[in-house]
Amino acid sequence: MTDRETIPLEEVDALVRRALTKHGASSAQAAAVARIVTSAERDGSESHGLFRVPGYVASLRSGKVDGTATPTLAHPAPAVVVVDAARGFAPLALELGLPALVDRAREMGIAALAIRHCFHFAALWPEVEQIAEAGLVGLAVTAATPMVAPAGGTKPFYGTNPLAFAFPRMDGPPLAFDMATAAMARGDIMLHARDGEPLPPGVGIGPDGAPSTDPDAVLAGAQLPFGGYKGAAIALMVELLAGAVAGDLFSYEAGAKGPKDGGPPEGGEFLIAIDPSRFGHGDGWQARAESFFSALADIEGTRLPGARRHGNRGDRHAAGAPIPASLLAEVRRLAGG
Amino acid sequence: MTDRETIPLEEVDALVRRALTKHGASSAQAAAVARIVTSAERDGSESHGLFRVPGYVASLRSGKVDGTATPTLAHPAPAVVVVDAARGFAPLALELGLPALVDRAREMGIAALAIRHCFHFAALWPEVEQIAEAGLVGLAVTAATPMVAPAGGTKPFYGTNPLAFAFPRMDGPPLAFDMATAAMARGDIMLHARDGEPLPPGVGIGPDGAPSTDPDAVLAGAQLPFGGYKGAAIALMVELLAGAVAGDLFSYEAGAKGPKDGGPPEGGEFLIAIDPSRFGHGDGWQARAESFFSALADIEGTRLPGARRHGNRGDRHAAGAPIPASLLAEVRRLAGG
Repeated sequence: MTDRETIPLEEVDALVRRALTKHGASSAQAAAVARIVTSAERDGSESHGLFRVPGYVASLRSGKVDGTATPTLAHPAPAVVVVDAARGFAPLALELGLPALVDRAREMGIAALAIRHCFHFAALWPEVEQIAEAGLVGLAVTAATPMVAPAGGTKPFYGTNPLAFAFPRMDGPPLAFDMATAAMARGDIMLHARDGEPLPPGVGIGPDGAPSTDPDAVLAGAQLPFGGYKGAAIALMVELLAGAVAGDLFSYEAGAKGPKDGGPPEGGEFLIAIDPSRFGHGDGWQARAESFFSALADIEGTRLPGARRHGNRGDRHAAGAPIPASLLAEVRRLAGG
Repeated sequence: MTDRETIPLEEVDALVRRALTKHGASSAQAAAVARIVTSAERDGSESHGLFRVPGYVASLRSGKVDGTATPTLAHPAPAVVVVDAARGFAPLALELGLPALVDRAREMGIAALAIRHCFHFAALWPEVEQIAEAGLVGLAVTAATPMVAPAGGTKPFYGTNPLAFAFPRMDGPPLAFDMATAAMARGDIMLHARDGEPLPPGVGIGPDGAPSTDPDAVLAGAQLPFGGYKGAAIALMVELLAGAVAGDLFSYEAGAKGPKDGGPPEGGEFLIAIDPSRFGHGDGWQARAESFFSALADIEGTRLPGARRHGNRGDRHAAGAPIPASLLAEVRRLAGG
């Protein structure tokens, strides 16, 4: 067992803000990142919590990310919102763009948000949950550095290219899922390597292109998409939406740009918000969706996506987040003790 | 080898029109279905070609589908198009809705189309290809009768819930994929049953809920989603878009409605069209996408989605479509000899 120290969520938030401002971030950039990191710790999503802070700091130190960037918003078409993150972190750009996306979706029935010139190092569920908390359906995708081989290929080309989706619930937090289109998260492969554990089949291939269950070989070779050529097709769709439509880098381009500082990759994010009440069938959709969720939950063995995360939420609001002691020591050091 | 007779695509089209009008369809409904069936035979997509005609006819005979329905169009919100198919087949409703969807997407940057009260029995690539041929990005989903177990569950609940996506190319037909979120198409499982071939693992479970490679057991039990819980999450998203947002039946509801005539299931379809040129980064997106496709094609072993189908297209325009003799005899009989 890892030694852990449980600290209040307010302390998580304050630590992140201090660590980032100490390394040159503006208070606005730091506060937006801190809110996202704290929401991850609140929901027990450790891999996107304080664990990411050393990477955020590294990207400020290397000068790759402009910690003082001020994002700007444009409306190039009636149902389109574009935020230029100006080479800052994604969270502040999203705080600017999401309310505008929600407004446009309510007015138009559907709207899109493209975030450009940003550095994304967080999960995607926070943004789609925020859309769904406004009563709309949310979808988000982002590309990243190349780690995943395309269907039939043997070299990394796609990012882990997550797809997130959220749908509003009548009571309680939205239904939400957020999944990498890679068969296994890269962080989990790294944990297998550290612990000397073989991977399950289908996770990756070695540098020679042959299937491998050796985590070190897969880290040196390429990850595989989930679900074979179908998952690869979704990874391809993510590249085209976050790259070509949003107007930012494809994963293979992001991978070719430096510096390799361990921080967030450069790239775009593409989001869609849909207002089901604007499709001419009244407000009954919400009750109909609830009857669907009930029918699904009645099937033995099923669980709605996001349920575990939302279960953690109440506990940690009250009790705080249990942080590995070595990580907490490192973040405290970065925050200036 | 199945005995086949090769007939010109014009004859495919004429046969379908005759078979449907002979069983009470209007010439407009019959012509729209015929165009879709002919495009499937043109592309070598046999499972959606003449193979479907007996089912189309059965649904006219049973009175489930109104073969004389006239679809109507509404704009309940600026970026939303809704077509009420009035209990007719999907193709005529799509012929009405797709041009309006394309117009709205060009004007607004993104737009959605919901088709309601329709019977869909075709692939989804024809509609997303049509969107992409207009220079836009297209996405389509539809739910259907319950055949697929949700994540962790042991009973059919989701339809095979296909997701289709198309992206315009500078030269030649669009990149397009159209995939069931089930691990294997139901028709392929039926072919395994007919031929006494075991299924690969992961395709389905028996009536007892245990994994099975026996095609008869899986047909009596439940299919599984592709890619485990991630594919199941996409199947869930499809239900929510085609059911709750479009304002039509969920798969489990469609399955409870009769008659079981072997024809198309009742349900909704949900489509999105996106105009990449309205995202404030000019017209360079098309050339950037082409450079991405080139980089992808340069990786040994890869092939772009849709390439095989487009390869068939040229051949069959010239030479016609090879139709199994027994199927051709049946369709000719339905068409009145």
